[in-house]
Amino acid sequence: MSDLSGPVLRLLLDGQPRTRAELIDLSGLARSTVTGRIEELVAAGLVVPSGEAASTGGRPPARFRFNPEARLILAADVGATHLSVALTDLTGEILDRSTTALNIAKGPEAVLSAVVRAGHALLKKAQRSADDLAGTGVGLPGPVEHSTGRPNHPPIMPGWDSYDVVARLAGEFAGPVLVDNDVNIMALGEHATAYPEVEHLLFVKVATGIGAGVISGGRLHRGAQGAAGDIGHIQAPGHTELCRCGNTGCLEAVASAAAIAAQLNTSTSQDIVELVRAGNAAATAAVRQAGREIGTVLAACVSLLNPSVIVVGGSLSQAGDSLLAGIREAIYARSLPLATTDLRVVTSRTGRDAALRGAAALVLQHQLTAS
Amino acid sequence: MSDLSGPVLRLLLDGQPRTRAELIDLSGLARSTVTGRIEELVAAGLVVPSGEAASTGGRPPARFRFNPEARLILAADVGATHLSVALTDLTGEILDRSTTALNIAKGPEAVLSAVVRAGHALLKKAQRSADDLAGTGVGLPGPVEHSTGRPNHPPIMPGWDSYDVVARLAGEFAGPVLVDNDVNIMALGEHATAYPEVEHLLFVKVATGIGAGVISGGRLHRGAQGAAGDIGHIQAPGHTELCRCGNTGCLEAVASAAAIAAQLNTSTSQDIVELVRAGNAAATAAVRQAGREIGTVLAACVSLLNPSVIVVGGSLSQAGDSLLAGIREAIYARSLPLATTDLRVVTSRTGRDAALRGAAALVLQHQLTAS
Repeated sequence: MSDLSGPVLRLLLDGQPRTRAELIDLSGLARSTVTGRIEELVAAGLVVPSGEAASTGGRPPARFRFNPEARLILAADVGATHLSVALTDLTGEILDRSTTALNIAKGPEAVLSAVVRAGHALLKKAQRSADDLAGTGVGLPGPVEHSTGRPNHPPIMPGWDSYDVVARLAGEFAGPVLVDNDVNIMALGEHATAYPEVEHLLFVKVATGIGAGVISGGRLHRGAQGAAGDIGHIQAPGHTELCRCGNTGCLEAVASAAAIAAQLNTSTSQDIVELVRAGNAAATAAVRQAGREIGTVLAACVSLLNPSVIVVGGSLSQAGDSLLAGIREAIYARSLPLATTDLRVVTSRTGRDAALRGAAALVLQHQLTAS
Repeated sequence: MSDLSGPVLRLLLDGQPRTRAELIDLSGLARSTVTGRIEELVAAGLVVPSGEAASTGGRPPARFRFNPEARLILAADVGATHLSVALTDLTGEILDRSTTALNIAKGPEAVLSAVVRAGHALLKKAQRSADDLAGTGVGLPGPVEHSTGRPNHPPIMPGWDSYDVVARLAGEFAGPVLVDNDVNIMALGEHATAYPEVEHLLFVKVATGIGAGVISGGRLHRGAQGAAGDIGHIQAPGHTELCRCGNTGCLEAVASAAAIAAQLNTSTSQDIVELVRAGNAAATAAVRQAGREIGTVLAACVSLLNPSVIVVGGSLSQAGDSLLAGIREAIYARSLPLATTDLRVVTSRTGRDAALRGAAALVLQHQLTAS
């Protein structure tokens, strides 16, 4: 058992101070077990005394509360062309961060060395040590075998296939290193931050590529090979465009920022967003049509999963209402009324923080909610 | 806490006899808690003494084991034109059953009275009383709001909309009454019986209609309104046939037994199965093509969920290899290699028992695995 897990600490995670007697009552554990565990948690700084409860006669009983800054989380969001690194507390709140331009194609040695340097710099600035970390969470822009943390044939990450990301970082920082793909951690981050009570949520990233993260029953659904959420390669009905995966008519080949940029003779998501914001009719129409194509595929996802929230994130979601309007139009046209009764289709609330919050959530779920 | 739940009983569900000391050790509960709970469970007949463990000096410690016939489950599979009712033990094993022809359109009073009569008859034959039941599980051929057990605008069930199934049955039999749609309980039954270790499974029923049950992380994924798995109304690419739901090109309008029967100028799944078995080329080709259409939609489900097993059940699955061959062909043509590395696409192993086993599993999960 990690010193961060177990039922006593879990009962305190809501921030509510509690007495020893309350913790015994709520956990059903033996008095000696609870008393010993509180002593360990206080010694580790994870739990601190927090005043006294009202006395029922005799010495008033001491209360204890969770101390979220006892340890920190290192969160790294490695994008295709950027690196963001942050320190968070044990609730996932971002305390400090740094972002630099960095090409993923420089390979794992260069990129992970930059993560290490950024992590140590943030720790130094916060006057904390690498031993204060409860763990490190990393998001990568390609398929990752979550159980080992190794990239699995990632298409845009030369040199990364099967690289041991965990081994490279574990020697530098205390605690476990957890790795997942960027869309999964964005889904985790959006869910943990903005929709903690929602059971069924779909996070859709629309950027150079298209992908989704699936929250089912409050938990990330990774699938058998960690390949769940790969909606960019579902066939867009009626299309035959060649996709970089070798198949034809994939949603990503039709409606991604890369596909729209090619139509508009421009090159990046940012260019498209600026054209739309400047009122360019061709760009606006192209984004809206992309929304319809994405919505048609999402309608199938709605029939299969019946989520209550679909969050649209990624760089193209900044193009304003056109994308969302196209998505909604197609979802409502193709779904059964029952499945869309209370469905909300919204843009990301965590925005650029989704990945960092998610990388922290990856560590928190592993460390704090394990039993 | 139900007398069937709690950590002590849960530790004994694997059938392994254990001593008091082992149960204290495994549960982390206080000695007094474990001792009291064992006494309650023995008094209820749910746990029985099972010999003695090897002594380490002094009197050898008693061992206790789970008694799966201490209570029974009543399982009812209500189809469009049949009713099957069974008694199972607390592992879900079917002890006895009865099946009759019955049209769901006779309405809830007539159909549920038949369930009550069949249940009492089976109990009498087994020389057990209605108080020996741990609960009743019911599958219905239409959408059900699982939390209340009420049918939700079911298309083929006149008179059933919002009917209080739970209230009608709760007065007759001991324990809770749990209701879900037939495809969900078939998925539960197939999973519990044949694939208990599989995390991600999709059960596809191909019959008069088409639907799916989604197992995610070992648990049934019902979705926000209990409408998950409704793949019959996902658009089959390239099709415009009018569906009974009012939309066009739905998978069910293209590839269900009803759609194939119309093409072949016959009427039921059974007719189609017999034509295929007799070597009729048109029927075989139609079933194979239906398989391709279903497989195209399932390829999207594979990209989204990355299951490790897809089970094909329902009456049309008895048409032999043609349906499965068509499904496999389309899935492998449209999925990314990573998601199909270890994917198995198979016919149902539980067959006609899937629904009854699933109705029992519904009760067992509610009663035995709640904490």
